[in-house]
Amino acid sequence: MSSTYGDNLKLSIFGQSHGKAIGMTLDGIPAGLPVDLVQLQRFLDRRAPGRSAHSTSRREADKLDFLSGIVDGFTCGAPLAAIIENTNANSSDYDAFRDLPRPGHADFTAHVKYGGYQDVAGGGHFSGRLTAPLCIAGGLCLQWLDKMGIHIGAHIIQIGDKKACRFNSIQPELDKVGLIFPTLTAEEAELFQENIENARLEGDSIGGRIECAIVGLPAGLGEPMFGGVETRLAQLLYGIPAVKNVGFGLSESFAAYHGSESNDPFTIIDGTIQTVTNHCGGILGGITTGMPVLFDVTVKPTPSIPKPQQTVSLTQMEQRTVTVQGRHDPCIVPRAVPVVEAAAAVAIYDMILGHTQSVARI
Amino acid sequence: MSSTYGDNLKLSIFGQSHGKAIGMTLDGIPAGLPVDLVQLQRFLDRRAPGRSAHSTSRREADKLDFLSGIVDGFTCGAPLAAIIENTNANSSDYDAFRDLPRPGHADFTAHVKYGGYQDVAGGGHFSGRLTAPLCIAGGLCLQWLDKMGIHIGAHIIQIGDKKACRFNSIQPELDKVGLIFPTLTAEEAELFQENIENARLEGDSIGGRIECAIVGLPAGLGEPMFGGVETRLAQLLYGIPAVKNVGFGLSESFAAYHGSESNDPFTIIDGTIQTVTNHCGGILGGITTGMPVLFDVTVKPTPSIPKPQQTVSLTQMEQRTVTVQGRHDPCIVPRAVPVVEAAAAVAIYDMILGHTQSVARI
Amino acid sequence: MSSTYGDNLKLSIFGQSHGKAIGMTLDGIPAGLPVDLVQLQRFLDRRAPGRSAHSTSRREADKLDFLSGIVDGFTCGAPLAAIIENTNANSSDYDAFRDLPRPGHADFTAHVKYGGYQDVAGGGHFSGRLTAPLCIAGGLCLQWLDKMGIHIGAHIIQIGDKKACRFNSIQPELDKVGLIFPTLTAEEAELFQENIENARLEGDSIGGRIECAIVGLPAGLGEPMFGGVETRLAQLLYGIPAVKNVGFGLSESFAAYHGSESNDPFTIIDGTIQTVTNHCGGILGGITTGMPVLFDVTVKPTPSIPKPQQTVSLTQMEQRTVTVQGRHDPCIVPRAVPVVEAAAAVAIYDMILGHTQSVARI
Amino acid sequence: MSSTYGDNLKLSIFGQSHGKAIGMTLDGIPAGLPVDLVQLQRFLDRRAPGRSAHSTSRREADKLDFLSGIVDGFTCGAPLAAIIENTNANSSDYDAFRDLPRPGHADFTAHVKYGGYQDVAGGGHFSGRLTAPLCIAGGLCLQWLDKMGIHIGAHIIQIGDKKACRFNSIQPELDKVGLIFPTLTAEEAELFQENIENARLEGDSIGGRIECAIVGLPAGLGEPMFGGVETRLAQLLYGIPAVKNVGFGLSESFAAYHGSESNDPFTIIDGTIQTVTNHCGGILGGITTGMPVLFDVTVKPTPSIPKPQQTVSLTQMEQRTVTVQGRHDPCIVPRAVPVVEAAAAVAIYDMILGHTQSVARI
Repeated sequence: MSSTYGDNLKLSIFGQSHGKAIGMTLDGIPAGLPVDLVQLQRFLDRRAPGRSAHSTSRREADKLDFLSGIVDGFTCGAPLAAIIENTNANSSDYDAFRDLPRPGHADFTAHVKYGGYQDVAGGGHFSGRLTAPLCIAGGLCLQWLDKMGIHIGAHIIQIGDKKACRFNSIQPELDKVGLIFPTLTAEEAELFQENIENARLEGDSIGGRIECAIVGLPAGLGEPMFGGVETRLAQLLYGIPAVKNVGFGLSESFAAYHGSESNDPFTIIDGTIQTVTNHCGGILGGITTGMPVLFDVTVKPTPSIPKPQQTVSLTQMEQRTVTVQGRHDPCIVPRAVPVVEAAAAVAIYDMILGHTQSVARI
Repeated sequence: MSSTYGDNLKLSIFGQSHGKAIGMTLDGIPAGLPVDLVQLQRFLDRRAPGRSAHSTSRREADKLDFLSGIVDGFTCGAPLAAIIENTNANSSDYDAFRDLPRPGHADFTAHVKYGGYQDVAGGGHFSGRLTAPLCIAGGLCLQWLDKMGIHIGAHIIQIGDKKACRFNSIQPELDKVGLIFPTLTAEEAELFQENIENARLEGDSIGGRIECAIVGLPAGLGEPMFGGVETRLAQLLYGIPAVKNVGFGLSESFAAYHGSESNDPFTIIDGTIQTVTNHCGGILGGITTGMPVLFDVTVKPTPSIPKPQQTVSLTQMEQRTVTVQGRHDPCIVPRAVPVVEAAAAVAIYDMILGHTQSVARI
Repeated sequence: MSSTYGDNLKLSIFGQSHGKAIGMTLDGIPAGLPVDLVQLQRFLDRRAPGRSAHSTSRREADKLDFLSGIVDGFTCGAPLAAIIENTNANSSDYDAFRDLPRPGHADFTAHVKYGGYQDVAGGGHFSGRLTAPLCIAGGLCLQWLDKMGIHIGAHIIQIGDKKACRFNSIQPELDKVGLIFPTLTAEEAELFQENIENARLEGDSIGGRIECAIVGLPAGLGEPMFGGVETRLAQLLYGIPAVKNVGFGLSESFAAYHGSESNDPFTIIDGTIQTVTNHCGGILGGITTGMPVLFDVTVKPTPSIPKPQQTVSLTQMEQRTVTVQGRHDPCIVPRAVPVVEAAAAVAIYDMILGHTQSVARI
Repeated sequence: MSSTYGDNLKLSIFGQSHGKAIGMTLDGIPAGLPVDLVQLQRFLDRRAPGRSAHSTSRREADKLDFLSGIVDGFTCGAPLAAIIENTNANSSDYDAFRDLPRPGHADFTAHVKYGGYQDVAGGGHFSGRLTAPLCIAGGLCLQWLDKMGIHIGAHIIQIGDKKACRFNSIQPELDKVGLIFPTLTAEEAELFQENIENARLEGDSIGGRIECAIVGLPAGLGEPMFGGVETRLAQLLYGIPAVKNVGFGLSESFAAYHGSESNDPFTIIDGTIQTVTNHCGGILGGITTGMPVLFDVTVKPTPSIPKPQQTVSLTQMEQRTVTVQGRHDPCIVPRAVPVVEAAAAVAIYDMILGHTQSVARI
């Protein structure tokens, strides 16, 4: 199903970029969980547009409105539903794209799929704006995981031709990630912002890569085969628009390794079994080892760019040129960082809810 | 759920490496589909062990036995069930690993998850042998897709430090892939086999990367958000043991691109809208463009190696050394090629079954 | 999952009786379906409270507000979301029931399940008010089924000790059902209303039974075993609060029949195969025969009654007496009639969406 | 999906009546659960044919063969798979029914659905024989529930015009049910067997009704709306061929009651809250009260009868007469009793597996 996720919880996301509201419902959450709405709004603000010189000038308050599921600050066992009204939609920007699909966008594929009935304005249901409801669900799960001692943090490791260091895979430095610009060092932030600014000045956009760490997970989480931690995370991560690669631990570099180098030897530290290295990203056989889980996602360049691009007129079936003047980020990667954290939190919390029955208790 | 997959079909895989039999059930398949058992067995043989100097010496006939779902050579609408008996199991090889988990293997995580009740012999349900039932389901789907003009083929693009060319993304050369060793050229095959042989001689193993192309898909397949083609494929691909990275089109290279380079311009060829390049791998917004779908998967080195490795005794909680003498492939990548094709076929056929209702017909 | 339904569509219902709003999301609906909001509101009004002397005096406009999924009067392929604000909630009525669970209600079981965190006001998520979102989804499906020539109608066949005739099972008289009070004849309406009025005067409530017919279905709809039409309908019908029995065709009377009486002989009428009788309710082996589908549901008496009843104080663990003074229907059966139609419509439309792949087309 | 069931476990049933084997896979079961194969075979024998003068003379050993999931008598965390070979199939009995669909059978609807590709022999996947794999899964769940103090038992309460007493709804007399013929008293057994024997002598068949009780359930099991205990049980019970009515507690009799009579008053016994009566069948708001759960199912008469019946030739489109000479039970109700217990056990065990997360533990 397109916009519904989860085994033990059910997340359902709805809305179009320029419709009345976007939102989500989250079913299957235990009663009695505290919800800190101030903290949740702050998390949403990390993703919200219009925060920096490098991001879209569309300013949305992204103000959260809960319709159900919370009583006196605690979950009540009933499904949670929350919406964000769309207040700053400028649909006339998009009239042209009904006929002239933007390269790299879902305009064309949505047109084919929905036979012209799709909501064109702002990209409709395909808009990056739909990551806001994912951040509502993810922001909630982050709060609840936090109370269990499970922490999730992401940073940027590549923008264009510039790369940055990855986390220490044994002790990821979550607390060193920049608040303004999510990198481990100020130097990296500067290089990355330079690349973004250059792309913007050229009327272009630029891609990048994000690394995320999850610390505090128990060993034994996840299921064999199609229920593995990799599968469960990838499923949600590929639901984030523009994500084109997902990898775990050494990721695509595993191809260049020998087993004697990439296998993580076991050892005993403080009475518990750990691995000396963590090349596998904390997952063996789809199941957590108890070490930090590490993964990376690659985000393609924003497809909407001012530079003229070649397209076709769907009605005239003729070659045309399109320039996208709307309000678009030259690089979506910084705003994608909290979205990656949110996706990871939803996937992990879903697994945690089901993590009770591996071994019989009778 | 761990070993069950699918939205429109339901694939359920069962069995342990050294149990009585492994197998699968496949529910939700239309009646009236022809099944060519000879061709299916031939497909299974591509994955079967013991076929070359580079693969495990465990020889399993992998002889297919259908229990239900086929009448007179056609599907009958009832669930298909098929099994493969395990005939060449040598469980005593594995007694040691109950206490000494092999680095890089699921021995340790399975022990934690199942509290010691897991089937240790041959890796149990975590064994690469469980890809055989996936190949039964995938081999069937490949036959049915073939009749619709949809063709799937994979080849090796990296083994260790050696890399090979990718497919032409506009017209993938499926017919040029080698039958004995799946590469586009004989030179690549030679380099890759050399790397594998060297690893074997050193008592080591080696990783690699596979690229897969799907041609003939209609535009409009897939759903937005969590139902996208990337999501659906990644879900099954990460179900293959040892897969640690999955990417589409330019894959992780997207991070280094500008939008003006990576966006695929639209054009009209023979009266249909196509893209001039195919960097997106045939998928925009999670939905097929009608161009070939291209993706890559990275396979880590076989964790079982003869070289001594550091581990711990679970019962004594002491450091130990383990050497894995069993019958293991120094490189699992060649045998993983048909498995990747099978996984892709199951995911695509599942989507094809549901691909009827995007636009109302009333 | 508690409040999520569907195989090919996904219906998700949220809200508490006295929360900010109740609503639903409906995912998986084709693009291009017309939506008549006036007709939909009229359907909701059939369920809404405060319409007659016999129903609760809580007056809710039940005004529908669509947040997404509809563009220019047609579905756009994105999930539909709609809410109804709660405007006439009187939560102080319910303070007592936090400690004194009402007999026949979910107060006690919700308390046990959610550890005291449940929303007590108005019955929370367990309120009959949550059938309004089901009616939004069902009202939409009714419109779309209508355009396919599939019509659904229900009437009351029992209230207390009075019973009425069932539909003609070959040609159900859907057009004869009363608009004000849903029975086939005015005499039945009078008898039933008399029974309801007597219950009300005695500070009591009364149960009843509803029969529903679905005409115009193609033969071949439904799946064997757990995907049968009976299963799919029962699943949603038991989601309606107070439903305690569901049966098909001759229903519980089948127990008294011989096979020679209850089997429906086949015949040919106007060139198509039909059954002479329709005791099976249009379903054999879980699959439609092409004859009308007929089923009945039994609704228990409204548990909330002014008469004093025995209960316990949860905090004091002592016997108490409770009288329920709130605004409650003495008989919920008339208002349940459109809800039964809505549930049937959602279940049937879900099956229709998947009804394309029984026989291969290659 | 047709032949797959479960939220926390996944049961998948396969096979055709006269195919090579029938069987099931059961995924999602905890590791470490003991399996008593002797007891399981004994449970299967209660359903097996050929045990009495009143049942079909087709004798099947129904010998159980486990392929996976059990190691040294305990579940190992991997999916369980078990098959029963079909040894006594007499397919030539069924050749006629390809053209002459039997009234009351799935012959016609399967033909329409599967376009002639369905397996006709023995009713194929629609055969009552497919309840054997359900009994494998149910027999396992019964063993595991038993160890938790949860017991399930069913008895016959009606055959034709003869009725028997129901269970005491506060303390169901599970231990009084007859082993040879499942009734509470020998007199009832005699009356019922007389009705069955009379039907057989007349070349006819007869229907009946079964009541089932589940004792020892905790309060708080089940979910609101579509996840209620009634929904979950009905879903599986309607998967049993020939079931046409399912009800809970007072069942269809609720229609004749007033609220003051049918509401169950709360009281305190031995320090725990209980209900004085149990008209609701142990379920309020879809959630268990902690009292016994009681439900009834109505089974229609066996459609296969020697008496001549009217049908049509599918190829000639002409009226015909059919007499069913095969080996059929004149009354399927006694053999359906263990199947009802098995269905209940699977549904309850599925809910038990998910019953851990209603209230947060952080």
